[in-house]
Amino acid sequence: MNNMDNNEFDEDVPHMSFFILGARHRYDILNELLKHEKLKPTEIASNLAIPLQNFSRDLNMLYRQWDWLGKDKDENYQLKPWARVMCSVLLPTVNFLAKNTSYFNEHDFGRLPKQFTNSIGVFAKSQHIKSVLRIESKEKSIFRNSNDYVYNILSEAKFSSELMKILEEKLSKGQQVRSIFSENTVLPENDESDDDGKLLNKNGKKIRQYLMKGQVKRKMMDNVNISIVMNESESLVMFPRLGKDTPDVSEGFYSNDKDFHQWCLDYFSYCWDDQSKSFERFEKNEE
Amino acid sequence: MNNMDNNEFDEDVPHMSFFILGARHRYDILNELLKHEKLKPTEIASNLAIPLQNFSRDLNMLYRQWDWLGKDKDENYQLKPWARVMCSVLLPTVNFLAKNTSYFNEHDFGRLPKQFTNSIGVFAKSQHIKSVLRIESKEKSIFRNSNDYVYNILSEAKFSSELMKILEEKLSKGQQVRSIFSENTVLPENDESDDDGKLLNKNGKKIRQYLMKGQVKRKMMDNVNISIVMNESESLVMFPRLGKDTPDVSEGFYSNDKDFHQWCLDYFSYCWDDQSKSFERFEKNEE
Repeated sequence: MNNMDNNEFDEDVPHMSFFILGARHRYDILNELLKHEKLKPTEIASNLAIPLQNFSRDLNMLYRQWDWLGKDKDENYQLKPWARVMCSVLLPTVNFLAKNTSYFNEHDFGRLPKQFTNSIGVFAKSQHIKSVLRIESKEKSIFRNSNDYVYNILSEAKFSSELMKILEEKLSKGQQVRSIFSENTVLPENDESDDDGKLLNKNGKKIRQYLMKGQVKRKMMDNVNISIVMNESESLVMFPRLGKDTPDVSEGFYSNDKDFHQWCLDYFSYCWDDQSKSFERFEKNEE
Repeated sequence: MNNMDNNEFDEDVPHMSFFILGARHRYDILNELLKHEKLKPTEIASNLAIPLQNFSRDLNMLYRQWDWLGKDKDENYQLKPWARVMCSVLLPTVNFLAKNTSYFNEHDFGRLPKQFTNSIGVFAKSQHIKSVLRIESKEKSIFRNSNDYVYNILSEAKFSSELMKILEEKLSKGQQVRSIFSENTVLPENDESDDDGKLLNKNGKKIRQYLMKGQVKRKMMDNVNISIVMNESESLVMFPRLGKDTPDVSEGFYSNDKDFHQWCLDYFSYCWDDQSKSFERFEKNEE
């Protein structure tokens, strides 16, 4: 045990847990135990490149001195329940944020309420997508892969004729669509003089029938600065640039991970139930 | 800079953020900056007992080398937005869990879904209450202080005559009450042979009128292992003992903090909307 360990060993000191997690070998051992319910020392060591002597010392410190681990009769080690919860929050949060500092030096979290930044760690399993083209293609595939529903929060209503076609096909199969638009949403122009415009108008009329049936529902929000496109299993999230009040649709985070999906669904529900109002501006035009 | 700093400095290494937070002085500086929007070095230093030379070195490392801080023209330092989100998750989570290890060596989190353990840091501002008597007195005061509503999740329907009296008074002022009981809730016996029993029966009948009006609503859940008693501003949460399937009502966490309240309201809504069913067992008896 070196001097630093000695000086800093005091469970009541708030930085102590960070000190324990702040050494690579200990971090690796805890990370392995987080991924598995329980492991024998040989199983942990075989997954890690740690000199055996250090490994035994670290494992022993975590078990005996710091009391983060439990051990059963068969020499299986496991994280204590509180340590499992703590690591399950800390590790993904750091993995996501510290690994995306260059993104987050140019973007922020909009007006994301605390209950959502608290669970920002669910983004750890997401994929960072760059370029408008890749984002658009991901949006299309989320529409295309949907079986039950498509929910979206948009600052631009850029429903291309291609997206409209997919949407209409899905609607004919009974799917639910819910959209939240920004009050200052840019609507596409239905210019009858070009083919895309004609198709858009034609499909737009069909979609109004689904609106009447309640299969398509729309709401309006004061200001959309985080954009979401999701179906029942996949989701895509786009944050605003620093100081901007609209989502940056040229970059986003995509995943089909369950926890990520739950986060997106919770955020969508929060916006739908609490933050948005009925879609007056458009309903009037449609009558 | 000592050897350890040198060896471990690599932003891409996942334990690096923990290493940065794992030294007392750096932790203290970051904690100060988390509590304020921005601070001048002299303001940070004046709140902390750090030797000046170390302080300047640490602040400079955080700003220049690790890029966790921004600095404006007036020499005010602030956490970068991503670092603020990261610290706002990490510090309270560790503060709550690492400080309550003795409680959590005997208790666990029931079947709390991940979106709720993710925000367990909101408990950092709560007060740990021990003893059945203090818990009961806290429950009574939550009922008494309520102005809009009382929501609760209970494994025992231990509505004492005193609590019933408070409840009835509140109901007469138009307050909303929602209760989720466990399927195997222990109901109090309305023993007409003693005074408490008579009063309980009398009040019970009045409460049925509020049930008919929809002012009192009740639901049933398969198994209640986390108990909540809350009004519109205060909340009390009780977790189960390790290996038990009912909440331990002899200890709990109480707070009137806003984020804590939001957590409790979200958990109550999750149980009310998704996890519980109508209150058949009792409704039948009441007809």
